[in-house]
Amino acid sequence: MTQTNRQLVLRARPKGLLAQGDLQLAEAAIPSPAEGQVLARVKYLSIDPTMRVWMATDSYLPAVGIGEVMRAAGLAEVVESRTKEFKKGDKVVGLTGLQDYCVIDTANKAARFQKVPPIPFISDTAFLGVLGLTGLTAYFGMMEIAKPQKGETLVVSAAAGATGSIAGQIGRIHGCRVVGIAGGAEKCKWLTEELGFDAAIDYKAADWKAKLAEATPKGVDINYENVGGEIMNAVLERMNLHGRVVLCGFISGYTKAEPEVLSAGLLIVKRLKVQGLLVLDYLDRFMEAATQLGKWKMFGKLKDRETIVEGLEKAPEAINMLFTGGNIGKTIVKVS
Amino acid sequence: MTQTNRQLVLRARPKGLLAQGDLQLAEAAIPSPAEGQVLARVKYLSIDPTMRVWMATDSYLPAVGIGEVMRAAGLAEVVESRTKEFKKGDKVVGLTGLQDYCVIDTANKAARFQKVPPIPFISDTAFLGVLGLTGLTAYFGMMEIAKPQKGETLVVSAAAGATGSIAGQIGRIHGCRVVGIAGGAEKCKWLTEELGFDAAIDYKAADWKAKLAEATPKGVDINYENVGGEIMNAVLERMNLHGRVVLCGFISGYTKAEPEVLSAGLLIVKRLKVQGLLVLDYLDRFMEAATQLGKWKMFGKLKDRETIVEGLEKAPEAINMLFTGGNIGKTIVKVS
Repeated sequence: MTQTNRQLVLRARPKGLLAQGDLQLAEAAIPSPAEGQVLARVKYLSIDPTMRVWMATDSYLPAVGIGEVMRAAGLAEVVESRTKEFKKGDKVVGLTGLQDYCVIDTANKAARFQKVPPIPFISDTAFLGVLGLTGLTAYFGMMEIAKPQKGETLVVSAAAGATGSIAGQIGRIHGCRVVGIAGGAEKCKWLTEELGFDAAIDYKAADWKAKLAEATPKGVDINYENVGGEIMNAVLERMNLHGRVVLCGFISGYTKAEPEVLSAGLLIVKRLKVQGLLVLDYLDRFMEAATQLGKWKMFGKLKDRETIVEGLEKAPEAINMLFTGGNIGKTIVKVS
Repeated sequence: MTQTNRQLVLRARPKGLLAQGDLQLAEAAIPSPAEGQVLARVKYLSIDPTMRVWMATDSYLPAVGIGEVMRAAGLAEVVESRTKEFKKGDKVVGLTGLQDYCVIDTANKAARFQKVPPIPFISDTAFLGVLGLTGLTAYFGMMEIAKPQKGETLVVSAAAGATGSIAGQIGRIHGCRVVGIAGGAEKCKWLTEELGFDAAIDYKAADWKAKLAEATPKGVDINYENVGGEIMNAVLERMNLHGRVVLCGFISGYTKAEPEVLSAGLLIVKRLKVQGLLVLDYLDRFMEAATQLGKWKMFGKLKDRETIVEGLEKAPEAINMLFTGGNIGKTIVKVS
């Protein structure tokens, strides 16, 4: 066990990819929990594109302040509890931050942590991925906005990512023709051979737009959008009348200066429904969604994969991997 | 009665506003209807922003061809019928085109004309406006996309136009706080004093954005968007979480070269639902909608106004008026 609490502190708002020193390792004393608080050892950290937004600007959450420990979701184990709610050894998920230890204050309802239930065949890290915020994001985006119908064509961008891979499989479970867009042969192979996507388009290939057209002979009814930019526009061009677009995120845009835009004229000509998605809006339905996702996973209908990076100090590199395409599935940093 | 059929023919695709000669007056013989056809005298023409789109490019309908009579909706009176469906003297609405006479071919189901029912206190021209496509557009945009709830704030742009004025009143009928954006004191006065809008913002005033903020102290839940550009962006900035945006049209954009765009990031941060609207999607519900609009009108809950321009040859000027803000309410050309 480390004797100090290592923390990654935001020192500068990144321009483009994270540069050396934007997040800086600092050491603090391991905190002592007060009455009503818990001290927990961070085991795993969830590495998500949205962290790049938190570093840059106010959004659905305020930006992380310069000098503050970087915000992150994680899985931690209680080492000392001065609450009735948690006991030593409990595993919990919540906003731990990029650090070795976190203090959970049960009086702070906004920062509430959830206990991880011990479920056979389900690893703890699943609660950061397929059963965590990225899986839940896919679930609510598909079930509440996309509403997939049998026989429809669904295109998912960043399809080999934590959210895209689950969104595509939910479409497949509902009888859609599912086409994934991802970078590189390995990811594409995983999508079609392991996850049962009907087609996968490697956007690094010169003829990817032609391949996208070939893979969507009946056009596109649903776009589950994680990337933005040129990829989003290519999919929107193939949308059918009355198609639905789930705006989940724009990984191509977070590291760019230009704002991400949509063609408003196309929305009218094709009468598209475009809706922004934030999983936190569905907080009161997380249990329902996690239960459904867990069932699909246990029955083998839903597969997931993790890219595990070892060591808290590697978190900045792991964040950059999301934008350079180095990860497959859920990206997680193993801390202890 | 004219002895020839004057027609406005598309000679060039306009750049910006219509220029002299883009639509050129030509004379043709009055056609003779064949079996299954009707000859009708055009009485009134509906002048709509969408005509500018039809002149420029393929959209939800193909562009009007160079050398073709300009497409337009109108109200006509049957002068000779070789069908069982229509008889001499019947008044009909449909795509008459910008001309003195049109031939209605009952075999062409895509171009079907509707008989105008004689209803007490309802003028024929209402079937081009409040009970015609512009009124129906407002109805379906509000009822099917916006779904206004009591106490919500609705902002309508081009609020003194044919569609905006009806959309705002439908919001008022449903208990919304209704704020209209329009150009000039006369229009704003009409909105608040005659139509019962809660506030009207004159976008020609230097401080209009501050006034918009004042008029929407609780933010904006619904944006019924007819204008685009700077006006749309100012309203989107004031949207509340989970707001709805009805994309009806972009009169500020049709005469510009740059494509109309929406901030995609804002859609996610505010989790907005943005949907493109085309009234033709609701063809099978036109009777239901016209009946409801007609009831509201007869009971004094819905007011409408027409700007009548005399003479077929004035149609190009009337079209330009839509983009320069010269009209109030529904713009109609009286042909005969």
